[in-house]
Amino acid sequence: MRYKLEPLENLVDQFERLPGIGRKTAQRLAFFVLNEKNKYAENFSKAIIDAKKTIRKCIKCQNLTDKEICFICEDEKRDKTVICVVEDAKDVSAFERTGEYNGLYHILNGLISPMNGVGVEELSIKDLLIRVSEMDIKEIIMATNPTIEGEATSMYISRILKPFEVKVTRLAYGIPVGGNLEFADEVTLFKALEGRSII
Amino acid sequence: MRYKLEPLENLVDQFERLPGIGRKTAQRLAFFVLNEKNKYAENFSKAIIDAKKTIRKCIKCQNLTDKEICFICEDEKRDKTVICVVEDAKDVSAFERTGEYNGLYHILNGLISPMNGVGVEELSIKDLLIRVSEMDIKEIIMATNPTIEGEATSMYISRILKPFEVKVTRLAYGIPVGGNLEFADEVTLFKALEGRSII
Repeated sequence: MRYKLEPLENLVDQFERLPGIGRKTAQRLAFFVLNEKNKYAENFSKAIIDAKKTIRKCIKCQNLTDKEICFICEDEKRDKTVICVVEDAKDVSAFERTGEYNGLYHILNGLISPMNGVGVEELSIKDLLIRVSEMDIKEIIMATNPTIEGEATSMYISRILKPFEVKVTRLAYGIPVGGNLEFADEVTLFKALEGRSII
Repeated sequence: MRYKLEPLENLVDQFERLPGIGRKTAQRLAFFVLNEKNKYAENFSKAIIDAKKTIRKCIKCQNLTDKEICFICEDEKRDKTVICVVEDAKDVSAFERTGEYNGLYHILNGLISPMNGVGVEELSIKDLLIRVSEMDIKEIIMATNPTIEGEATSMYISRILKPFEVKVTRLAYGIPVGGNLEFADEVTLFKALEGRSII
């Protein structure tokens, strides 16, 4: 005999759809929600709908925003001659946390991946070209993840940007700060050696 | 400058309250919900409210149910002379999955834990005593987790059940099926040896 409780099973199913959440964890989370006060369930439920309803993509850079244009594109103080190209909106928050970057962003909404059926058309590459042609851009920083797909996407974009004669750079490879040489893989160590600088 | 988007931050906060979910994971889950279709957000939101609204505790055994009495207490075919005492409703589904147990349950809603301020009054021990005195119970199976708190709670309950002259048993300790002797800890191995049976 199964433990049948439709609303509970349904909640477990919804949790299970989240990335990295298996059946057991989904069950644990559902039980947690049931054991909490009503207020939490209400707030949680409302937060999902609110976020989904109000948040959309900036028409300029594809960053998440609750207005038409995101707060970065809107900011008068940002350097409008540099664009940092990233895979998704999470990467924007990572860069913003450094507090060191003052240019604009462009979010690709993914990486070129023939294996997963993601081609050039699925990404916002065309929008990037339009921005580059319309604005006075001095530098494009490619900041995709250092994976095969990230590298391939970077290479592709840098190639189609050639005609615009804009400087295209990419993030430095090397050992992470606070990391341990012992645990660095060979490729990273080689790249760190290759990119060494005078102190 | 922080990455400020009230509805997004709020959704991340709600996810972060779940057990075992840190800030980074909460962020990843929130972004996943935003990237999914509207339907998912709607279903998820509704599932939380529905589950919280319809599911309550069985007035007899404290198991989760959407009626006044759970399907186990209601079932005519279950053996009403045996009660299996467990910590929470998740344990009921674990036992039900075995398909081998046909008795009733009693959910304690926690374990005695002075460290966490959980005393005897917080648990449903009184309800268990009432059930034992009113029904014709032949056996109480203590099935709390084999932790210090689980053992202490078991011991406490078995002691206060003494006057009722009901048989109180507990689950067998031993090596888990499919386990490896090599990785079994000393106490488990000792208990397995102690509880050995003739083949």
